[in-house]
Amino acid sequence: MTTPLAAIILAAGMGKRMKSDLHKVLHPIAGRPMLLHLIDSFAVAGATHQVVVVGARRDQVEAAVVPFGGIIAAQDDQLGTAHAALMAKDALADFDGIAIVAFGDTPLLRPETIAAMAARLDAPGAPRVAVLGFRPDDVKAYGRIVADRDGTIAKMVEFKDASTEERGVNLCNSGVTAVRARDLWSLLERVGNDNAVGEYYLPDIVMLAIADGDRAVVVETDPDEVIGINSRAELAYAEERWQAARRTQAMADGVTLIAPATVWFAYDTRIGRDVMIAPNVVFGPGTTIADGATIHAFSHIEGATIGRRAEVGPYARLRPGAVMGIGSKVGNFVEMKKTVLGDGAKANHLSYLGDAEVGAGANIGAGTITCNYDGFFKYCTSIGEGAFIGSNSALVAPVSIGAGAIVAAGSVVTQDVAADALALVRPAQSEKPGWAKRFRDRMTAKKTAR
Amino acid sequence: MTTPLAAIILAAGMGKRMKSDLHKVLHPIAGRPMLLHLIDSFAVAGATHQVVVVGARRDQVEAAVVPFGGIIAAQDDQLGTAHAALMAKDALADFDGIAIVAFGDTPLLRPETIAAMAARLDAPGAPRVAVLGFRPDDVKAYGRIVADRDGTIAKMVEFKDASTEERGVNLCNSGVTAVRARDLWSLLERVGNDNAVGEYYLPDIVMLAIADGDRAVVVETDPDEVIGINSRAELAYAEERWQAARRTQAMADGVTLIAPATVWFAYDTRIGRDVMIAPNVVFGPGTTIADGATIHAFSHIEGATIGRRAEVGPYARLRPGAVMGIGSKVGNFVEMKKTVLGDGAKANHLSYLGDAEVGAGANIGAGTITCNYDGFFKYCTSIGEGAFIGSNSALVAPVSIGAGAIVAAGSVVTQDVAADALALVRPAQSEKPGWAKRFRDRMTAKKTAR
Amino acid sequence: MTTPLAAIILAAGMGKRMKSDLHKVLHPIAGRPMLLHLIDSFAVAGATHQVVVVGARRDQVEAAVVPFGGIIAAQDDQLGTAHAALMAKDALADFDGIAIVAFGDTPLLRPETIAAMAARLDAPGAPRVAVLGFRPDDVKAYGRIVADRDGTIAKMVEFKDASTEERGVNLCNSGVTAVRARDLWSLLERVGNDNAVGEYYLPDIVMLAIADGDRAVVVETDPDEVIGINSRAELAYAEERWQAARRTQAMADGVTLIAPATVWFAYDTRIGRDVMIAPNVVFGPGTTIADGATIHAFSHIEGATIGRRAEVGPYARLRPGAVMGIGSKVGNFVEMKKTVLGDGAKANHLSYLGDAEVGAGANIGAGTITCNYDGFFKYCTSIGEGAFIGSNSALVAPVSIGAGAIVAAGSVVTQDVAADALALVRPAQSEKPGWAKRFRDRMTAKKTAR
Repeated sequence: MTTPLAAIILAAGMGKRMKSDLHKVLHPIAGRPMLLHLIDSFAVAGATHQVVVVGARRDQVEAAVVPFGGIIAAQDDQLGTAHAALMAKDALADFDGIAIVAFGDTPLLRPETIAAMAARLDAPGAPRVAVLGFRPDDVKAYGRIVADRDGTIAKMVEFKDASTEERGVNLCNSGVTAVRARDLWSLLERVGNDNAVGEYYLPDIVMLAIADGDRAVVVETDPDEVIGINSRAELAYAEERWQAARRTQAMADGVTLIAPATVWFAYDTRIGRDVMIAPNVVFGPGTTIADGATIHAFSHIEGATIGRRAEVGPYARLRPGAVMGIGSKVGNFVEMKKTVLGDGAKANHLSYLGDAEVGAGANIGAGTITCNYDGFFKYCTSIGEGAFIGSNSALVAPVSIGAGAIVAAGSVVTQDVAADALALVRPAQSEKPGWAKRFRDRMTAKKTAR
Repeated sequence: MTTPLAAIILAAGMGKRMKSDLHKVLHPIAGRPMLLHLIDSFAVAGATHQVVVVGARRDQVEAAVVPFGGIIAAQDDQLGTAHAALMAKDALADFDGIAIVAFGDTPLLRPETIAAMAARLDAPGAPRVAVLGFRPDDVKAYGRIVADRDGTIAKMVEFKDASTEERGVNLCNSGVTAVRARDLWSLLERVGNDNAVGEYYLPDIVMLAIADGDRAVVVETDPDEVIGINSRAELAYAEERWQAARRTQAMADGVTLIAPATVWFAYDTRIGRDVMIAPNVVFGPGTTIADGATIHAFSHIEGATIGRRAEVGPYARLRPGAVMGIGSKVGNFVEMKKTVLGDGAKANHLSYLGDAEVGAGANIGAGTITCNYDGFFKYCTSIGEGAFIGSNSALVAPVSIGAGAIVAAGSVVTQDVAADALALVRPAQSEKPGWAKRFRDRMTAKKTAR
Repeated sequence: MTTPLAAIILAAGMGKRMKSDLHKVLHPIAGRPMLLHLIDSFAVAGATHQVVVVGARRDQVEAAVVPFGGIIAAQDDQLGTAHAALMAKDALADFDGIAIVAFGDTPLLRPETIAAMAARLDAPGAPRVAVLGFRPDDVKAYGRIVADRDGTIAKMVEFKDASTEERGVNLCNSGVTAVRARDLWSLLERVGNDNAVGEYYLPDIVMLAIADGDRAVVVETDPDEVIGINSRAELAYAEERWQAARRTQAMADGVTLIAPATVWFAYDTRIGRDVMIAPNVVFGPGTTIADGATIHAFSHIEGATIGRRAEVGPYARLRPGAVMGIGSKVGNFVEMKKTVLGDGAKANHLSYLGDAEVGAGANIGAGTITCNYDGFFKYCTSIGEGAFIGSNSALVAPVSIGAGAIVAAGSVVTQDVAADALALVRPAQSEKPGWAKRFRDRMTAKKTAR
């Protein structure tokens, strides 16, 4: 599309039913605020301007969208959707192209759909307005669209004003509306508020256009795409629909999900072919998994890069900056953060690796802990290729273990260890014969006495 | 309601299909025996007397209900529900009020419904009997209730005796029945057993009342409320319905459940506003969560008190007596039991805190373990405000770490540490140059030789 | 049945939609390659010969089935199912009995159904061919079977060739077909490829038999049993159906599943009565659980034997060779591998037990680790009856702790400990008064300076 595209995203609603101190449009889906899903979709569709119309909690929204290029427009009084859309006029004063009005609480709108709406307005003999419609299983009290086969709209009607026949129509209005920007402002300014609640309704511009003798059309889409979120239950439903679609896509791409409904992806999870994901795996943002990797059950993965044929879990927690080499393994009850695990290296049990670099083929024994924090600063640990860290060792950073070195079990290592050396931090073992029996007898007597 | 209320709970069934050594009515839902759900609902509705009619496994039931004020009545022979209800006569000899007969294996009956039935009998010109009806999706072989619009019952009929027209009725009898107690006994005594299996049926009292020229009415309720449990599959179904309702309530109250179907509440879980609960969280009884707290995935929480803005998990296990202060954190693979964690204190990784008090702002390093048990007794650990416990430390209780003290990594602390002191329990590090290489060569040779 | 039975399993399809380097029929369901489910069902039904017809990736399939007695036959060109079945002729040259042609990607076929099909051909006056039919909710484009009430087939028709009336038939062909082997080859050789894609279709032998004046019959089964798997989504669906059936069976057998949909069994999981399984438990192959055991949430269990009234989890990981005695306990964040835990012994927190034997009543403290690996070989640890291993201990194998001995907390045990003795490996505790305060002041200054 060569005609520029702008988004006007209405986000002035109070969201009272959320019962939250966080603005409704900032509640996350798949690990990302719902508003940013929408902004990202518009960006992918080619929008060059994105105006978010905000009422209360403007600061929260501003902080979230400005880093992504969003422009804030204020709607101080809640006078209806047409009024809200008009608040974007100043921000788009120099914009000459197609504007699409969408809703911050309807975040699953796809780039393809946005592009289709824009394209509909960008052809020779294009209609004046395009509206996004859908056919839900349960038509509820949605506004209805009476249209002919090619999508030309005869009438738009609010549910409460609809006749019985009109209520029988199952094509509903999502509210998402595309108009050329310069035309939009004049249409919006003509909208009146002569209705029960005294609000200015955005859909009225369709009837205004038709009254002008112009054509308005409906573009249809899947109901899942226009799910609106007004409560935490609806938020959970949208999350569920998003996840269901993502799981289906993963399987189509050659990923085995033993129990698809128990795997929770983030918005940006990337997964290779022949990856196996066991039941109960949760992804946070920022993860990439290469071909042939295996993610065992109960793993929690965020901001990680997982190499080819690597094995994760069960019960592995990978935090941001975890990088696993080819064929490396992170096993049960192991946490990894800002740590690179070399090819073929293993940390199989009960360990914490933070701010560390582990060379290829190294073996991290059970219970190993990198002591990376002194209460004030974080320090790095370096473990060379092929090193062997004995179980229950503490590596007090900053510290370096040379390639091929061995750290004896239970050591607290505070000084660097040379390559190929053995480091040993261990007092002699002593024994008190019969002591345990005497202790037991004494305690048994004490317990009996109680 | 001023008229006293009594419950007669029938629990004499064998529950053979459960294939269990535990009495059917004691199998738990949401962490509480199903019978106690019912007893609690009657208590909330204001019942002053609760009689549980038991056959086999009387001891099990008695032990469960007596602490809650339940009275046991025995039914030695299984002669039907009317006979069972009559067994409560002696226990209620002095009771003059409304009696409601309910079923121990139908535990989801709500206090509101109980109160509504009682109220129906407590008005001027009230009917003689009130029966609880429901309209299931699948009417199966339930007894049918033929009633007019205002609920006056024309006929009650067992499915097998019903005409085709009567089977077409979708109003079914749950069996729950309300009658004035002094009237109940005489009605029950008039019930005969002239039927195929020779049993005395409770619903017969409705037809007896009608034959007397009196009025019987149906009170309707949601089918989910009268789910009967005869097998473990039905137990799981009741659990599922209970959980679904609880999750919906939590979301309506302002709690985010990213994946509602994966969060399992206990009967008494209390949750504040703007709490976020990630996928796969399991609650046992006795937990309270204050506003703004976050529960990460794979957490297991029982008997815990979680302060405002506290963070739990992922993979945190809070056991009874875990108390988390405002803004405190318990991270992955950490277990807490009978331990108070002060405001802002942190135990982020791989630790066990048992029988401990941790001061505000203290930092518990990865791998810290309170050694609270000597095989006979439990001992307490005290950690002062702002103390720093180095990783992989063992604190051998009873022991006290002063405020602001530091315990060096890997220490086994057996003596109290003064405030602001550093405690160090560590031998010198020694190194054997080249030892690891020689070991590797020897072992490689040995492995090759095998 | 006395007549011998042979299976001809077609597995020559490419399975492109799986997008996998693993042959489609080797993708697992419930922890076992789908093909082996089918081979096992045929074995249970009494099949003495099993021929698997393979095209590409023959090596993978051969490696999987040969250990189970499967015989490989190659189909080099993909000329259709009749041609594929004919490839088994040589392998069954000496076989005189009933052959059943089935599909490697339709693995949920039950032994009872196989036996029913064979029995249908093994009676006096038996039909010449038996076909397995099913009535799906969604008949899609399956081939239809027009049959009379007793199952005699009038016509088999591919969907695309079916009349409107025939498409209205909801009895569909699964493709599974039983014929006497010596008759099968001649029927298959008569099948032509005069159709749109030039393939030889197996169902054509039914119409050939009917044309010969012989009788062909349909045996009906549950649609879930003939689920075909061509994609990872279908694989997940088959897994889900398998699990749903297994969960239902477990509950019917007297197992409590609090949340059935969150428990994932392996194909061979065996469970006793009055076992309680909490939400989110994953089983790998090879596990047996005795009566009265409790499996808490988030447990991961494979190759384990769990004794009566034992308690597992939450967050317990039992790996192959884990054997738990009567009333023993393995608690949170504990991993057990090739280890026997005696009756009443406990390992409640944060431990790794590998290649160990733990005597009855022993207590393994939190953070205990058996150091069983030196980078080359694995070694054993022996812990006597009633021994007490203090927290955070490392037991460096091979090592033996005598009965009733105590290992002090934080010890690294490298030498055997005598029965009833106390082993102590611990330097003296030293203290530097005021050091922590001075450190804090210094670091605070440094942090401020940054």
